Amino acid sequence: MFHVTTVKQFDLNTTMQLMEHAERLRSMKRSDLANQLAGRLIATLFYEPSTRTRLSFEAAVYRLGGQVISAENARETSSSKKGETLADVFRVVGAYVDAIVIRHHSAEELDEAIPYSTVPVISAGAGSGEHPTQALLDTYTIWRELGRLDELTVAVLGDLKYGRTVHSLLRMLTKMKRIRVKLFHPTGLCLPAHLEEEVALAGVEIEHCDTIEQALSDSDVVYQTRIQSERLEGLDEACAATEYAIHHEHLTVLPEHARILHPLPRVGEIDPAIDPDARAAYFRQAENGLYMRMALLDQLLKGELS
Amino acid sequence: MFHVTTVKQFDLNTTMQLMEHAERLRSMKRSDLANQLAGRLIATLFYEPSTRTRLSFEAAVYRLGGQVISAENARETSSSKKGETLADVFRVVGAYVDAIVIRHHSAEELDEAIPYSTVPVISAGAGSGEHPTQALLDTYTIWRELGRLDELTVAVLGDLKYGRTVHSLLRMLTKMKRIRVKLFHPTGLCLPAHLEEEVALAGVEIEHCDTIEQALSDSDVVYQTRIQSERLEGLDEACAATEYAIHHEHLTVLPEHARILHPLPRVGEIDPAIDPDARAAYFRQAENGLYMRMALLDQLLKGELS
Amino acid sequence: MFHVTTVKQFDLNTTMQLMEHAERLRSMKRSDLANQLAGRLIATLFYEPSTRTRLSFEAAVYRLGGQVISAENARETSSSKKGETLADVFRVVGAYVDAIVIRHHSAEELDEAIPYSTVPVISAGAGSGEHPTQALLDTYTIWRELGRLDELTVAVLGDLKYGRTVHSLLRMLTKMKRIRVKLFHPTGLCLPAHLEEEVALAGVEIEHCDTIEQALSDSDVVYQTRIQSERLEGLDEACAATEYAIHHEHLTVLPEHARILHPLPRVGEIDPAIDPDARAAYFRQAENGLYMRMALLDQLLKGELS
Repeated sequence: MFHVTTVKQFDLNTTMQLMEHAERLRSMKRSDLANQLAGRLIATLFYEPSTRTRLSFEAAVYRLGGQVISAENARETSSSKKGETLADVFRVVGAYVDAIVIRHHSAEELDEAIPYSTVPVISAGAGSGEHPTQALLDTYTIWRELGRLDELTVAVLGDLKYGRTVHSLLRMLTKMKRIRVKLFHPTGLCLPAHLEEEVALAGVEIEHCDTIEQALSDSDVVYQTRIQSERLEGLDEACAATEYAIHHEHLTVLPEHARILHPLPRVGEIDPAIDPDARAAYFRQAENGLYMRMALLDQLLKGELS
Repeated sequence: MFHVTTVKQFDLNTTMQLMEHAERLRSMKRSDLANQLAGRLIATLFYEPSTRTRLSFEAAVYRLGGQVISAENARETSSSKKGETLADVFRVVGAYVDAIVIRHHSAEELDEAIPYSTVPVISAGAGSGEHPTQALLDTYTIWRELGRLDELTVAVLGDLKYGRTVHSLLRMLTKMKRIRVKLFHPTGLCLPAHLEEEVALAGVEIEHCDTIEQALSDSDVVYQTRIQSERLEGLDEACAATEYAIHHEHLTVLPEHARILHPLPRVGEIDPAIDPDARAAYFRQAENGLYMRMALLDQLLKGELS
Repeated sequence: MFHVTTVKQFDLNTTMQLMEHAERLRSMKRSDLANQLAGRLIATLFYEPSTRTRLSFEAAVYRLGGQVISAENARETSSSKKGETLADVFRVVGAYVDAIVIRHHSAEELDEAIPYSTVPVISAGAGSGEHPTQALLDTYTIWRELGRLDELTVAVLGDLKYGRTVHSLLRMLTKMKRIRVKLFHPTGLCLPAHLEEEVALAGVEIEHCDTIEQALSDSDVVYQTRIQSERLEGLDEACAATEYAIHHEHLTVLPEHARILHPLPRVGEIDPAIDPDARAAYFRQAENGLYMRMALLDQLLKGELS
């Protein structure tokens, strides 16, 4: 039984295989797509509401011809409120469906419960832990936009401390060759020391930047993230918005071939005036998420992942 | 790209075409219906919960063979809470689906965001603005019940100030010929002056009534609406219930051929004792909503609306 | 029009017919199953959230090839908040779908509204009243695990006062022959007098137990239920947990052929250490629920129930 809970499960080979499958699915006719998972039923259980991620997974299932049962606010409406364990949920819901997609507020609870599931489980983000499918779609976007996964300079901006998409992406980058990472973050929101060490030990070159211009100047990829205002320590929001947001004038220091990614939603970190620029890849990235999740679901349910 | 946001988009020709298509769909076998939108995926995004309208749209999609992804309480569970713009939502969700049905709390926000959508958007009601598909199904009901859309006397009762279904219906009536409208409303809940002017300028004859009997006496159509108690100014609820509700004894003043419509839900404005009377058309009206929404979705997704 | 609201509607013959149909559906290929209700649309309206029951019904519909429209929190999001009657809901939603599955907070309101529905209604639990499909799946589990529905000793544990699954199960047992029931409950949570009388009058032998060992010792079936802490009168929670929970050591007094059932969710009433024991039937019971609901929906929509 293969469950998807961490990017550690995806070596470059498996990732490449998924990306190629995503491309294949993208090129298929709608009617052919709809045969892939016909008759399959998937549960989406969201203990933290996340409409975008849930809709992305559900659209992926429907495009492949499958069906969905869903709890979009499971923490409030399900028996977890009465004290039921997640292990029991997996055993019961696993009797109804072929796979479970879950967003949970606790990575620990999720890890403890997964061995009890009788069907494959895909994490759609867990607490402050990982968000493996986001890292897969980020990687897919880099590969699709730049044509390679090595010799990359990646600027990572924003909340490096709590941002689970950042953590998952950095772990993904450790699998690639000749990677240089440039970090730029508000005071107090730096990368956790253990993660920085893990990334450095894997051979990734790390550079700390003092200005956004420095971060952008020679990057191939700019990974911008949202800073939740309640996370800011010793720095007011307006200041963060000013110093960490990408504005139209920054496009002059950014190489022509570079790509700006953002896991979305954005609030003010990327000026919408940038959207028409070819380097703004975040909406294509969101669309890539649909195809990467289709590829993952398809291979997982067909037993092609291991 | 055709989006549905206001009844102003529907002239009598287009409306007639939709009504005839609704009739055609109504007469089709279930299995033939299910081929119309096979493989199509529609998102229903409700920023204000409205179970009835959402279920009506979703049933319409399923009857036509399509699939639905849904956010039934998007304001609470989606990224709008984090400050994401509706334009970004349209760009992302538009990458997943073939059309978006949206109920939003702000007509202005909706209008601003729509140009960014990459797929057709249908408004399922927006703030205190319009509710175009309700007006279409109201019109369809009048046509289906009375056989014509001109030379009509239409009594409009209840909350004329805030009722968006009333506003959309009145705009629809301006497109028809020889229309007389009789208005009857609690103090303080009269039609906005600009709308009364707009309607009068379009050639609709307007008559203000002092009693419900006066309103009903020679009407072809009675359009009753719910008065939200919090809207009442200088008039207590019990009084409104007494003076504005249609009771069984009113049937004697109502012409035999007349029809009573109500967008539903009703609370006390129509005595259930009236339900068995042939003139009570509100439940047939609700069913007409299903077929009108099927017609609209079908023509919109096939590019037959413009 | 057949509606499912109480176990009183199911005599042993009908129940047996449903159980045999459940077995038949269980043995069918997925692709054949999916033809049974193709093109049918079912509404699930949950006025009290109950993710497990809702997902079970929805999975049943999808496995049979049908489609679902759903309100998972109808009390908050639907027009019932505005004062709409359930009768009106049934008339409107009944125009959209082929059947309605409803969980409602009031058995009385449900009973009053059902005559107005134009499509079959299935109760998925109503207030402190009945939960008929739970009783059907409980019965199905006893039959499937023990091979018979007569000459049974059934221990019923926990909240006998408010537990609607207990009440429905006991009513079901009155239809069987040579049934002995052993009751064990915290102070203040005894069976309502009228129900105990009803059960006794039907020929069921009732025995009140003072210890869990006494209840378990010679039982064929142990039906454990959750005690909601707010229900406890004159007994603290920890004490209830100690005295009423089934622990691993209890397995020694329980006959080898016996089966432990629980409607789930469990909180602490059954020690997870028991789960691997063959007598622990509660997860198989949950799976049986899927097939019993498939059988019920299939027969109901094909007009085979009466």
